[in-house]
Amino acid sequence: MSGNALASKSLGEAPEERRFLSTSEATALERELLDEYRFGWQQLVELYGHASAVAVTKAFPLSLLSRKQRTVLVVCGPEQNGAVGLACARHLRVFDYQPSIFCPVRSADTLHRDLTTQCEKMDIPFLSFLPAEARLIDDAYGLVVDALLGPGVLPAEAGGPCARALATLRRLSIPLVSLDVPSGWDAEAGGDAADALQPDVLVSLAAPKSCARRFTGRRHFVAGRFVPEDVRRKFGLRLPEYAGTECVAAL
Amino acid sequence: MSGNALASKSLGEAPEERRFLSTSEATALERELLDEYRFGWQQLVELYGHASAVAVTKAFPLSLLSRKQRTVLVVCGPEQNGAVGLACARHLRVFDYQPSIFCPVRSADTLHRDLTTQCEKMDIPFLSFLPAEARLIDDAYGLVVDALLGPGVLPAEAGGPCARALATLRRLSIPLVSLDVPSGWDAEAGGDAADALQPDVLVSLAAPKSCARRFTGRRHFVAGRFVPEDVRRKFGLRLPEYAGTECVAAL
Repeated sequence: MSGNALASKSLGEAPEERRFLSTSEATALERELLDEYRFGWQQLVELYGHASAVAVTKAFPLSLLSRKQRTVLVVCGPEQNGAVGLACARHLRVFDYQPSIFCPVRSADTLHRDLTTQCEKMDIPFLSFLPAEARLIDDAYGLVVDALLGPGVLPAEAGGPCARALATLRRLSIPLVSLDVPSGWDAEAGGDAADALQPDVLVSLAAPKSCARRFTGRRHFVAGRFVPEDVRRKFGLRLPEYAGTECVAAL
Repeated sequence: MSGNALASKSLGEAPEERRFLSTSEATALERELLDEYRFGWQQLVELYGHASAVAVTKAFPLSLLSRKQRTVLVVCGPEQNGAVGLACARHLRVFDYQPSIFCPVRSADTLHRDLTTQCEKMDIPFLSFLPAEARLIDDAYGLVVDALLGPGVLPAEAGGPCARALATLRRLSIPLVSLDVPSGWDAEAGGDAADALQPDVLVSLAAPKSCARRFTGRRHFVAGRFVPEDVRRKFGLRLPEYAGTECVAAL
């Protein structure tokens, strides 16, 4: 068994577990990008948001969608995940989708506020509340992007408005795209909790986190083309090749 | 004549002159993005740098290049144009080109410094000086990206190191890609001056500037997919459609 593992290693194939980052590895990778490489949040959020929108176009190509199916509800929490959701919504608008945004809590963070202004000025509608009745959302939108809770934020810690939004999202029947760690999932153990979402599409930011092993939806993308080669090597990321100038790759 | 102009307008075809921004219009468009839409410099530079690199891949596809032709000298000035050049070099590296960077003057600007760190940490070589002999550069690199002087910076105002770099670039025979306004060009009148570069490829950032009318090189791209529809309308930009999720369009 260990001989086989060695053989597969020498062929350049990573053992399955090396493709997924533990919470502490994910934090270390992010710190490496921010502290060592001097990437800025604004820059990272733009790269992630753009790539997330491109992933949506691959999972749900515009040409195959009816007018109604092009309507996308993007649910953005107050943390970094939510900022990526706001940038994703803006790029979806540019790609001719019809996003609407719901932020259960408005963030005081400057980047969040600026990204919100960009969306507002582009006439992307912001919902003032999320209908509690799932059917109303299922009827109004073609799909939902979940940028609600960041990695490691459990529903119990999320606070009233976010927890209520999560409870509603869980009852939807339209396709669901989660950014990075699906809301309600434990970043390591995954989404076994009753209040966890079960996304159809997962977009891992930078690299897949441990929980992504439990993902059973139909498409899994990684949005980390910009991650420098040395960082990939340091964290043992053996990801599929990104083709051409693509910013996402299917896993 | 005016009847024809009206007819072409009603068909949605813009008269040629509406496609190019005067210096004051370009400044107003930038202020609109920064002040009204709250885009940040970091965000804009990342979008422009990424799109510029994508434009290079379209004009010089990797698959058609020999190993030597993949080497790209990116010449970055101390202004915003130079920051876009640094981001472009990083994305070129990610796209498997072999960029090297020359900055005649190191900028004290934080964003410049951070983008420089990103490139340095990715092992992109920085030249400490530019050989004055053009042949040495022609022999060493496949192409040059000119991100030296921003719009409206005339060589006489540029200061010794930048003016000297420009004088060298003018004598090169390898293909030249200029970002936004080719170095040495007047942003309005174009590049008639003896010390102006004559690029093979022009990448207009956000929208083409007046001087681009005088561009006679082989490919002209615009990198402004993210520019909101309302801003395009306000400034009378009638640009070709961006296909799919493309961040650049050929003019």
